[in-house]
Amino acid sequence: MKYDKFFSEDVGSFMRSPVREIFKKVDLASIYSFAGGYPDAATFPIDDVRRISAQVLEKYGAKALQYGATQGVPELRQVIAQRYGVAVENVQITTSSQQGIDVCTRVLADPGDVILTTSPTYLGALQSFKSYRADIRTLEDYGWEKPVKFCYVIPDFQNPSGETMSLAEREALVALVREHDFLIVEDSPYRELRYSGEPQPTLYSLAPERTLHLGSFSKVFAPGFRLGWILGPVELLDQIYVCKQSLDLCPPILDQYIAAEFMGSGALDANLQKSIALYRAKRDKMLALLEKYMPAGVSWTHPEGGLFLFLTLPEGVDTVALYDRALSAGVAYVAGSFFFVDGSHRNTMRLNFSFLDASRMEAGIRLLAEVIQE
Amino acid sequence: MKYDKFFSEDVGSFMRSPVREIFKKVDLASIYSFAGGYPDAATFPIDDVRRISAQVLEKYGAKALQYGATQGVPELRQVIAQRYGVAVENVQITTSSQQGIDVCTRVLADPGDVILTTSPTYLGALQSFKSYRADIRTLEDYGWEKPVKFCYVIPDFQNPSGETMSLAEREALVALVREHDFLIVEDSPYRELRYSGEPQPTLYSLAPERTLHLGSFSKVFAPGFRLGWILGPVELLDQIYVCKQSLDLCPPILDQYIAAEFMGSGALDANLQKSIALYRAKRDKMLALLEKYMPAGVSWTHPEGGLFLFLTLPEGVDTVALYDRALSAGVAYVAGSFFFVDGSHRNTMRLNFSFLDASRMEAGIRLLAEVIQE
Repeated sequence: MKYDKFFSEDVGSFMRSPVREIFKKVDLASIYSFAGGYPDAATFPIDDVRRISAQVLEKYGAKALQYGATQGVPELRQVIAQRYGVAVENVQITTSSQQGIDVCTRVLADPGDVILTTSPTYLGALQSFKSYRADIRTLEDYGWEKPVKFCYVIPDFQNPSGETMSLAEREALVALVREHDFLIVEDSPYRELRYSGEPQPTLYSLAPERTLHLGSFSKVFAPGFRLGWILGPVELLDQIYVCKQSLDLCPPILDQYIAAEFMGSGALDANLQKSIALYRAKRDKMLALLEKYMPAGVSWTHPEGGLFLFLTLPEGVDTVALYDRALSAGVAYVAGSFFFVDGSHRNTMRLNFSFLDASRMEAGIRLLAEVIQE
Repeated sequence: MKYDKFFSEDVGSFMRSPVREIFKKVDLASIYSFAGGYPDAATFPIDDVRRISAQVLEKYGAKALQYGATQGVPELRQVIAQRYGVAVENVQITTSSQQGIDVCTRVLADPGDVILTTSPTYLGALQSFKSYRADIRTLEDYGWEKPVKFCYVIPDFQNPSGETMSLAEREALVALVREHDFLIVEDSPYRELRYSGEPQPTLYSLAPERTLHLGSFSKVFAPGFRLGWILGPVELLDQIYVCKQSLDLCPPILDQYIAAEFMGSGALDANLQKSIALYRAKRDKMLALLEKYMPAGVSWTHPEGGLFLFLTLPEGVDTVALYDRALSAGVAYVAGSFFFVDGSHRNTMRLNFSFLDASRMEAGIRLLAEVIQE
């Protein structure tokens, strides 16, 4: 039977994640993988989760297993509001911050509407924007020929570049947004993972009336919980709330109580300290290894935090074409061109430094340098 | 600041759940509520959850907290495949069966596309179809003037009517679907909650090549986990899989391992036996109380399972208008007209018999009968 005629027009614009396709082909444990955006499993507070889940089932009983409010359980909204200095009504819990991207796009963009983004940018955001058939344009060179719905940015330790917007860049963006009258979707999953340098104010703090700020538990707790949040103006959150009713009614309840207890009790901050120390050492090691092994003509970013850095190889090297050879040699990365709106920059690649054991990094980078050298 | 101009066209078709609005107004515990579709908290296997979560964290360790496959963890797909006699490749895990409805609609329907449904039908499905601006038509009286994308049905213990499709009705629907060449979305959250009568084959078993069958853990385990599944042809599941990447990457991992262990170990079946006994008694009590207290001219359905029955009052009684009076008196229901595609049948109401303690049912039904009598 043929199914093509049954599909909606959106389906024609769906994009398969090349990262997830890589993971289908190969067992991550058998190679040196700099490909995914996986946190180091050593940062997962398994003992805390064991203790807190028992505690929460004791404290809330059946309530932890029943349906709950679409906005999220009050206890979790409360601790997030407190931590980030906002009112509870400005907090919507999402079932992952990927859902945050999806629901913002759904509520704001029609097919053909302009969404601005830096280029390169997060693949999962591009997937979402494309799936809604938005007109994705690059922030840096947009000519303002059509009105803009929103601009999507990851100001801190960007995925994939690892770069952080300066205060001046943030203020310039806010001025632009006010001048041309559009909104900001600020994706902020890595913000609390800073290893050096000084924190800059969030875009949400600079333009609260125009910003939907997406937070995530994936990098500061554990991605398996699929919990995130949106901070924003109540007028926007209200439509997101109604949309979320038909998306999944409410986020998972037991998981929310666990996250609330983890964040509210101080366990998150204790764990974060350890994660930051671990990742800082990994970043420093990665930078030293690139310095040691990469051939001349290869350059890379120097992130102050997050999980990624971005390599630029000499013009003419094609990291998409190189990929199968690298995989056969036993090392994985994500080709940089996947993160560019127009698929350009085929001489770039994203490297993740959070996932691989520090002890295996050197062999992996040496292998990668050899593949590039050839 | 005005936000209206930023919203997508879909937003204009969003529908607020009147059920969820009721819950905002009033504390459920303070009244006799026949309104929601909440399971009885006494059916939640809290001890099993406590035991199994510790066990699963021990067994899978960090894997239970890491990202996982978009299709769901293999262990959960496996036990579902086994229980329902399908291949693992025909199982997609969803983050709630509401997400199942949403993703099916997203992948199949463009604005203006025809979706057929029985009328009345599940409110959350109507919300989803409306949010995509589909052309929602009634199965019983459709004139076939436009091609149909799919037909949405709840064959077993329907929400809100409580009614079950006979084998002849199922076969007739399958014949119709094949004749007019469209698909079926079979929503099946209550199927395992049968209190009397004989099970009928699923539509999925009668027309596997044309059916997306939605299952849910909410009524046989606990709704707080927000886990469901879709059984269907791989060609359809493949696009649903790609769509789900941009919706939320993957379902919650720890919750999936807990559900897999609960279902695979036999704990689900043991718990289901107890739930069925409890709900059968509640249904029987509810039917007896309606018989005892309802004034002449009121009739109701006699469900063989599920959580709901449906009342029809004399012509001219308006249950929407009656609602505030009922609430003031201390009893809640959902007006039946909300479940009709055209908002008709204002003399009907849905009553839930699963949530309220059996000991409080009599006072609630007596109160409701008095409000109707007036």
